[in-house]
Amino acid sequence: MEKLLKSIIFTHSLLSIDTKKQRVVILGSGWAGYTFSRTLDPSKYERIVISPRSYFVFTPLLASTSVGTLEFRAVLESVRRLPGGVRFYQGWADEVDFSRKVIRVEANAVDPLPDALLPSISPQTNQPLGNEIFDVEYDKLVIAVGAYSQTFGIPGVREHAHFLRDVGDARRIRLRVLSLFEQCSYPTSSGDKNGRIAENALSEEEKRSLLHFVVVGGGPTGIEFAAELHDLIHEDLKAMYPELIPLVRITVYDIAPKVLPMFDQALAQYAMDTFARQGIEVRTEHHLERIRVADGALGDAHGGLSIKIKEYGDDEINAGLVVWSTGLMQNPLVEQLVSKEFAIAKDSALEQDKTSLHRLLKDPKTGGIFTDRYLRARITDGQDTAAGTGDVLPDVYVMGDCAVIEADRSLPKTAQVASQQAGYLAKQLNKSTQSLSNPTDVSNSWKPFKFRNWGTLTYLGGWKAIHQSSADELRGWVAWIVWRGAYLTRSMSVRNKLMVPVYWFVSWLFGRDISRF
Amino acid sequence: MEKLLKSIIFTHSLLSIDTKKQRVVILGSGWAGYTFSRTLDPSKYERIVISPRSYFVFTPLLASTSVGTLEFRAVLESVRRLPGGVRFYQGWADEVDFSRKVIRVEANAVDPLPDALLPSISPQTNQPLGNEIFDVEYDKLVIAVGAYSQTFGIPGVREHAHFLRDVGDARRIRLRVLSLFEQCSYPTSSGDKNGRIAENALSEEEKRSLLHFVVVGGGPTGIEFAAELHDLIHEDLKAMYPELIPLVRITVYDIAPKVLPMFDQALAQYAMDTFARQGIEVRTEHHLERIRVADGALGDAHGGLSIKIKEYGDDEINAGLVVWSTGLMQNPLVEQLVSKEFAIAKDSALEQDKTSLHRLLKDPKTGGIFTDRYLRARITDGQDTAAGTGDVLPDVYVMGDCAVIEADRSLPKTAQVASQQAGYLAKQLNKSTQSLSNPTDVSNSWKPFKFRNWGTLTYLGGWKAIHQSSADELRGWVAWIVWRGAYLTRSMSVRNKLMVPVYWFVSWLFGRDISRF
Repeated sequence: MEKLLKSIIFTHSLLSIDTKKQRVVILGSGWAGYTFSRTLDPSKYERIVISPRSYFVFTPLLASTSVGTLEFRAVLESVRRLPGGVRFYQGWADEVDFSRKVIRVEANAVDPLPDALLPSISPQTNQPLGNEIFDVEYDKLVIAVGAYSQTFGIPGVREHAHFLRDVGDARRIRLRVLSLFEQCSYPTSSGDKNGRIAENALSEEEKRSLLHFVVVGGGPTGIEFAAELHDLIHEDLKAMYPELIPLVRITVYDIAPKVLPMFDQALAQYAMDTFARQGIEVRTEHHLERIRVADGALGDAHGGLSIKIKEYGDDEINAGLVVWSTGLMQNPLVEQLVSKEFAIAKDSALEQDKTSLHRLLKDPKTGGIFTDRYLRARITDGQDTAAGTGDVLPDVYVMGDCAVIEADRSLPKTAQVASQQAGYLAKQLNKSTQSLSNPTDVSNSWKPFKFRNWGTLTYLGGWKAIHQSSADELRGWVAWIVWRGAYLTRSMSVRNKLMVPVYWFVSWLFGRDISRF
Repeated sequence: MEKLLKSIIFTHSLLSIDTKKQRVVILGSGWAGYTFSRTLDPSKYERIVISPRSYFVFTPLLASTSVGTLEFRAVLESVRRLPGGVRFYQGWADEVDFSRKVIRVEANAVDPLPDALLPSISPQTNQPLGNEIFDVEYDKLVIAVGAYSQTFGIPGVREHAHFLRDVGDARRIRLRVLSLFEQCSYPTSSGDKNGRIAENALSEEEKRSLLHFVVVGGGPTGIEFAAELHDLIHEDLKAMYPELIPLVRITVYDIAPKVLPMFDQALAQYAMDTFARQGIEVRTEHHLERIRVADGALGDAHGGLSIKIKEYGDDEINAGLVVWSTGLMQNPLVEQLVSKEFAIAKDSALEQDKTSLHRLLKDPKTGGIFTDRYLRARITDGQDTAAGTGDVLPDVYVMGDCAVIEADRSLPKTAQVASQQAGYLAKQLNKSTQSLSNPTDVSNSWKPFKFRNWGTLTYLGGWKAIHQSSADELRGWVAWIVWRGAYLTRSMSVRNKLMVPVYWFVSWLFGRDISRF
């Protein structure tokens, strides 16, 4: 029987690299998708990754790259370089046909270059230019598409604020910060001693506006970015633009009563005190309502922004840069997947030729896809749509920000959770001796997923950090060493395990890199 | 007398950092401008650099960065980080008033970010947005503004071809090369075994077009780029896109009968043979007449290009990328400077209150500014415009690509010449005991500039290079070692002397970096 099945697989899977292996398709190249792909055994499974981004980003170090402490490439891992071989398609999953086990993929490799926006309508035929669209079959599917940044519909955020989730974001932030200092480095409008007035010069007040750096979101990302920015200004830019340093301000806004909510009160207070000593303002319980381009040349010529904060009434504040690091919303693919009905065949041994209609089960609170304790996608029963019947969609798994474990909905949407889920799932599949005829029995030999909180680390600037786990709390220098050490042990290639310390050393010895190109 | 003069300087130069020092303003941050700035003694002179680019580019290694062998930042030196302090203004010199010794500078720090094109007309006032314009006074002026790329008016070159002179160029080339491979990595239009046809897929012929890399210019820049590109493809991309490698072609075109004209016949032939073995085509005596976007989706959706070569008649060739590495033309500032008349005061001790009108002396052949053997700008006599009278403009020096030494017009426009001129001039000024009252006597104590040809090195790919100097000729492995060693000893900061070997090692051990962002 097995030989017959295998020869059927052979005939049907001529696209597979090795036709004896099942094909596992992974949607996503983030913490869940990449960690899963790199842990899944390529000798047992064929790995295919589909993602609009061809590399994984080591997000805890992203804030460091946004100010030049580290080079961008030291925090990337290219999917194509995964040892053991992986097939990669750069693109989006437009649709998934769960009945036929086929994914409709739209290519997106034709990314606009910085200085050449490729047209979306053909000037020759006047038809919309289409990306290539093709199908990819799967034996097992892992949905790890993550989440998008949430702007809560606040006007001006998407147009004028910077996110900090990917290397492109970090690069744009870095260019903007350095550009602002350069723009303020010319003579002011008050003229020089010879009475010559420069044309179109900035006043000191305008320079203060441009050198005001605003961070929205008091979680680890926002706090670490403010900390890194402070280091850049006071360790590197101070030597190059000494006259500008007194004009610089950094402000962190958050709607919650306290920042860093995952830390206990004492550590969060330590963070606030550290920031206060460094001159970083933290304004909790402040709500941003609108961002717009500032009036006059400040806005038009220099990109200055005016921000309306509810607690300040009509008085807007000005800034040169706004970094938005709060809020997640569901990936549009997830919204589309949970809305469609699909048919799956009943267990062929019991009920021949019968199919039933199902939907993926959606968490009404977050919009994510519900899974069982084994990360398998939960579906509605064929007869009623109530949850609780425990049906799962065979061979489809969901992890990371877009997933919600039905029995443990309190898990936070963090990199730690995503990477642990991914490691868990890959290891179970590696051990699994599952045969095709019993797809739903897998849970009999699997242990359920259990999250282990390794603690949280947040850098505060000035070589200080805070760390909290169930075992201990650390602050100051010690935490900084743990922070730097911890990053080296996870999800990094050997190349980057080498390059990250090299960059830290070089930045420390020679200063951060501050060139703009 | 000296004390009186010094107190006059003090009153007039309140903008100077140290009012006892003369102010030397350098226009340019390339091989001449940067080398001069870094060699001029900051304890003797106040250094001010004006350039649209805030960093120096170590051009011999630029081709390596364009394929990921080296990181961009390892070939940059930031002007602001020059030891000893330097004032830097990012901008262009719009005009120079030689009579009053004032430069009119236009700021250009508001460089458009990749994804936000700042408007040039204010949407609020409908007036053109102005860059800041201000004046900078000088005691001595060094003009080192370099040259622009020359496209000989060939249609389509400026719009569609890539130059390779700056880091931005290298980055765009790198993104384009990797994007082309990614674009060709999807299933072809011939469909899969199940009969499913992908929409908008590329045919194999179209993939061959996109994977055709064309280099125009058979000098060291073009040859080295072709060599580095070959290494990238056959050392790194071969593992990731094995099915695409047979479709790849690299072709070098040049109008001259032979490439690498600065090498003797034997070495140039060795280069050609090496390329032939590597599958790089070299087509000498071929003239490019036009570049345009290819027809259909190949051009519109994928950026493919069609190129008309005179020797092929009407048959165009297709390519995915064209790198243009030939031809220099004068900087517009130079053209403007040589066209204006200006008045300078006669030697005050001899002819009080008399001024005469002069022009800078221009080389009719290249358009550059003539200098004497001490790199001082030559000017026309007050009475007649004939050259040969030997008049120089006090305190104004010209070096590099925009300069022509009148008595030695055969010097090539190379980095070596520019950096030697810069080192020479800075050292003479450092030694000079010139007093203000005798500005034209400086040449009495100076030796004239003399170029020493250190030889030429060109990398050929596959760990081979050629080197030629008056002392010896090298080829193969030995030249490769000399090539790599030589780069470390010149014009590089300690930081990059460290980082370049680190990157070479890391690229060799782990492969080149191939992420696109």
